[in-house]
Amino acid sequence: MELSRIGTVYLVGAGPGDPELITARGLRLLQQADVVVYDRLVHPALIQTLPKETERIFVGKAPGKQMLPQDGIHVLLIARAMQGCNVVRLKGGDPFVFGRGGEECLALAEAGIPYEVVPGVSSAVAAASYAGIPVTQRGVAQGFSVVTGHTRASYDEEPDWIELVRMGTLVIMMGLKNLERIVTHLLDNAQPPSTPVAVVANASTHQQEVVEAPLHQIVGLTAHLKPPATVIIGDVVKLRRSLDWFSSSTLAGYTNGQDVFTFPDLDTLTAITQPLNNE
Amino acid sequence: MELSRIGTVYLVGAGPGDPELITARGLRLLQQADVVVYDRLVHPALIQTLPKETERIFVGKAPGKQMLPQDGIHVLLIARAMQGCNVVRLKGGDPFVFGRGGEECLALAEAGIPYEVVPGVSSAVAAASYAGIPVTQRGVAQGFSVVTGHTRASYDEEPDWIELVRMGTLVIMMGLKNLERIVTHLLDNAQPPSTPVAVVANASTHQQEVVEAPLHQIVGLTAHLKPPATVIIGDVVKLRRSLDWFSSSTLAGYTNGQDVFTFPDLDTLTAITQPLNNE
Repeated sequence: MELSRIGTVYLVGAGPGDPELITARGLRLLQQADVVVYDRLVHPALIQTLPKETERIFVGKAPGKQMLPQDGIHVLLIARAMQGCNVVRLKGGDPFVFGRGGEECLALAEAGIPYEVVPGVSSAVAAASYAGIPVTQRGVAQGFSVVTGHTRASYDEEPDWIELVRMGTLVIMMGLKNLERIVTHLLDNAQPPSTPVAVVANASTHQQEVVEAPLHQIVGLTAHLKPPATVIIGDVVKLRRSLDWFSSSTLAGYTNGQDVFTFPDLDTLTAITQPLNNE
Repeated sequence: MELSRIGTVYLVGAGPGDPELITARGLRLLQQADVVVYDRLVHPALIQTLPKETERIFVGKAPGKQMLPQDGIHVLLIARAMQGCNVVRLKGGDPFVFGRGGEECLALAEAGIPYEVVPGVSSAVAAASYAGIPVTQRGVAQGFSVVTGHTRASYDEEPDWIELVRMGTLVIMMGLKNLERIVTHLLDNAQPPSTPVAVVANASTHQQEVVEAPLHQIVGLTAHLKPPATVIIGDVVKLRRSLDWFSSSTLAGYTNGQDVFTFPDLDTLTAITQPLNNE
């Protein structure tokens, strides 16, 4: 029996939803992988178009439940790499923005498994873009903050919402579940009720829905929305009235309402990393 | 003389530096464009591999000077679209993160020119990732803020640096020029001198250089660096000691030290948006 070489694990960001927003490198690595370990928010088209022989392992977390605990994901990645497989760990958005990618890298590093990170388009910025909202704009917002609305065990860990809104655009990822609590806190602490808010559900897909309303009305108007959703708070939200490009774009219907794609083949993708003739 | 149709302007994010970090859609649109209008921080490989007939217009801003004023860029985009050209406006990072993309979209909207936004990987997150630093990490940072170190005319507009560092990871884009002033302000306002800081120059390219030091030492150690550079402040910087994957990766030398690439051809890229046979 031969000793196999150790494989490499690539933590790849799949982007905010639309499968064509994955990076060229991410797409190439997907086509070359022996194993793809993926989450719930990864677009199915990215999995459906893998070569037939690629092993696909779903480890997605639905809200409130999880297929495999985080430790189990670490063991899985390490085990497949030890078997000599090149593994793509495909995560929604960017692997290092609330994706627990840092924890997975630490586990790989401790186990001596080679790994690389392939950043993705984070929905922190892209969800706003698809709603026609630039997170920064001269004269409106000179910066932005990104926090998660989930994963807080106790009130002690609560962010200082008032201060975050004061500092610039505030983006709350996974912001739907605790939106009422956050809005109540802001209003109770003298945040103006007219503060502009947008909630973007299913950003960048054909199921995208955007609700824009002043702070004191947003909770009632978003009761029908389901995760995943991103909340944007700040004056940049007003720019949506001029910049809502997605609703009227060809993209909004470019696969006849079906989120189904084909992707470039491996030969073409590997060509990306071939050096040109030196001139 | 025929009236020509109006073209569409695509604001495309080129990503943080490495040309293979452009999105699949961005790459496809580049290959299909009649005109590409691009900035200084766009990787030359993305321009060199355009079809021969594509018109290329450089409107880059070097630090302190600009080829074409912002209004001139607006006029150029509008004029080419009115001539019937499909235009890619290629910007470093993401078009809506300090790229003045919002202003360009407003100008296009006012002129009645159709436009779409193609988000890119922002160096706000990617520069940290390539330095082995996740901007969020359970138990370390539950959120992050992104501001620019440039473009402030007066002290009145200065961000509240102390508060930004208190809130989570702070990312300062274009942070090199004013680093000394920002660090002095933080130290004068009781920010601990041991606060971890990293400065990442030329992120994700073969010229990448990372300097990691405590707050009170970072200015002296980064005097030799040149823009573009991203500053990361916060406890997540310590994770670099375990997670510095890029320095030892195959990527660090994957074109023999030359940032030169070839890319997929148009036929392959257009295949991305063809629907699969309905089953």
